[in-house]
Amino acid sequence: MGITRYESGSRTAATVLDEAKRLVEPAYRSSLDRIAPPIRMIVGYHAGWLDATGRPSKQVGKSVRSALVLASAKAVAAAEPPQGVAEAVAVELVHDFSLLHDDLLDGDEQWRNRRTAWSVFGERGAQLAGDALLAMAINEMVGRPGITLLSKALVALCNGPSADIDSEHHEPVGLDESLAMIESKTAALLSCACEMGAIAGGADPEQASALADFGHHLGIAFQLIDDVLGIWGNPGVTGKSLYPDLANRKKSSPIARALDSTGPTADVLRELYRDAGRDHETLHRIACLIELTGAREWAEREADRQLGAALDCLTGIAADEATEDLRLLAAMMTSRPA
Amino acid sequence: MGITRYESGSRTAATVLDEAKRLVEPAYRSSLDRIAPPIRMIVGYHAGWLDATGRPSKQVGKSVRSALVLASAKAVAAAEPPQGVAEAVAVELVHDFSLLHDDLLDGDEQWRNRRTAWSVFGERGAQLAGDALLAMAINEMVGRPGITLLSKALVALCNGPSADIDSEHHEPVGLDESLAMIESKTAALLSCACEMGAIAGGADPEQASALADFGHHLGIAFQLIDDVLGIWGNPGVTGKSLYPDLANRKKSSPIARALDSTGPTADVLRELYRDAGRDHETLHRIACLIELTGAREWAEREADRQLGAALDCLTGIAADEATEDLRLLAAMMTSRPA
Repeated sequence: MGITRYESGSRTAATVLDEAKRLVEPAYRSSLDRIAPPIRMIVGYHAGWLDATGRPSKQVGKSVRSALVLASAKAVAAAEPPQGVAEAVAVELVHDFSLLHDDLLDGDEQWRNRRTAWSVFGERGAQLAGDALLAMAINEMVGRPGITLLSKALVALCNGPSADIDSEHHEPVGLDESLAMIESKTAALLSCACEMGAIAGGADPEQASALADFGHHLGIAFQLIDDVLGIWGNPGVTGKSLYPDLANRKKSSPIARALDSTGPTADVLRELYRDAGRDHETLHRIACLIELTGAREWAEREADRQLGAALDCLTGIAADEATEDLRLLAAMMTSRPA
Repeated sequence: MGITRYESGSRTAATVLDEAKRLVEPAYRSSLDRIAPPIRMIVGYHAGWLDATGRPSKQVGKSVRSALVLASAKAVAAAEPPQGVAEAVAVELVHDFSLLHDDLLDGDEQWRNRRTAWSVFGERGAQLAGDALLAMAINEMVGRPGITLLSKALVALCNGPSADIDSEHHEPVGLDESLAMIESKTAALLSCACEMGAIAGGADPEQASALADFGHHLGIAFQLIDDVLGIWGNPGVTGKSLYPDLANRKKSSPIARALDSTGPTADVLRELYRDAGRDHETLHRIACLIELTGAREWAEREADRQLGAALDCLTGIAADEATEDLRLLAAMMTSRPA
């Protein structure tokens, strides 16, 4: 299967996501039902189930992480599927915790054409809601073997953004640090998702470790493409504003790569990036200069390499049909802007 | 033993605290060593080990929760003490998480004559530091039976302050809600501390449950006295400003009780509390009016009742000498302002 195809026969990544959502969403919701009402409203808004007044709304999430957990369980399943629903809920809770607190940390008022939770309910409410999500995630995993993995991912996740803190106030982040942040902020949780799913599905240690590696490499590929989308993505598709990572002065990996590179283009870029304002024309020029340094091509090639490494991990752990959902998800998660 | 004495022979509550600190502090510090440097500095400052520039400073914490964990383990100890060090570290980490995030939520710039972490390092850093503390607490407990209890306490803790949110923006908190907040914010963690300690010490289910109840009642008594100190405490002793709970319009239980009561004094109080500024003279008048409604006496009597219930839980689970440390700690934690 080509690495950019995300359908296989009649089965598509969308089918895999829909199935996961149907299985995981009720369990996720009943986990949130244990949160006290005012905080539950914030969490429900953040998850897309409620509007800002608390009325039911359309769910907007994609459940990619849930789907990875279930697909990993299915890939090795000794037991009858579905396995891994509780693990999927825990991963989604941790992911939502991390998004909610990140929006607050970054001061982002919009995410996918929607006001962020803190900008609607205030910083206080958003912080409490994030804490409650984390508490529910732990609660979900108590008594399950995967809790060790979730705890490890949490430590990585909470250690990740600290480079961020430094970068805003001190020196620019170099490429190495930027890649380290990808590992701790994205790859750690996806690796955890796949390994927890594998264990829930009854994996032997070799399979569990292979699926952990799959999630790790996929996480890096996914984030690199997300970084590419953060600069060159079409806002109509991504739901983000134009050049969001440039406007917010994030140090995503293509930006770090471009700022680290040599030559006259990079010199002009560095000067513009450091001094200039952030009007639309400047952002456009910066995006062009970054692309001219070869950073976009680098990111896409590196994403391909990581995706290849991820798919290699699937070889030999199970029959091709068993890992089909994982391949479909991997291709979808790394599909790039036209 | 009288419930207000906190020494017994040559052994005092201070001895119990010192022993606990000597055992738990190195383990606590090595847990923090796994946090990334910029965040570790914030956490170290919050814990009192570092000053704002990162230089070593005097530790200010009292380790009351650690001491309760170890004393609970000792009370039932089948195994050789000390048991419960990891559990004590986890409880301290959760407590520090909760303090750090609470200071941020409440916007408190000072705590015990020291600037709070967020006021030194910013909101962003304080939030990350809180998250990291929570992650380390979970990490500490992975693979230990007490994690179920810690998870339950976390859910209670994160559900607790939501009444707070409501109270600031909507209606005043009634006495029932104020007591419910005491249960979820203080009693849940102390109950968890004692029960985790008991389990680490090899308690049978009956002993574990009795120690959970002990911690629960002690937690309520402790918080009631803390609420009394928050209004009538001597700032030279508490290290807090004068009338901190009144100045910050907190709805602690004596305040809720006074505002809920009937009669002309309460009418005057309600009007003053709602409308007036917060200059020193007004705070003093409010404190007097609260006392005149009988709310202080109520809180102290209720604290005594809860302390009595706590001590009753110790009867029969072990010999008196085995529970001596718990009694010393209980008396110290509920000693009231002169």
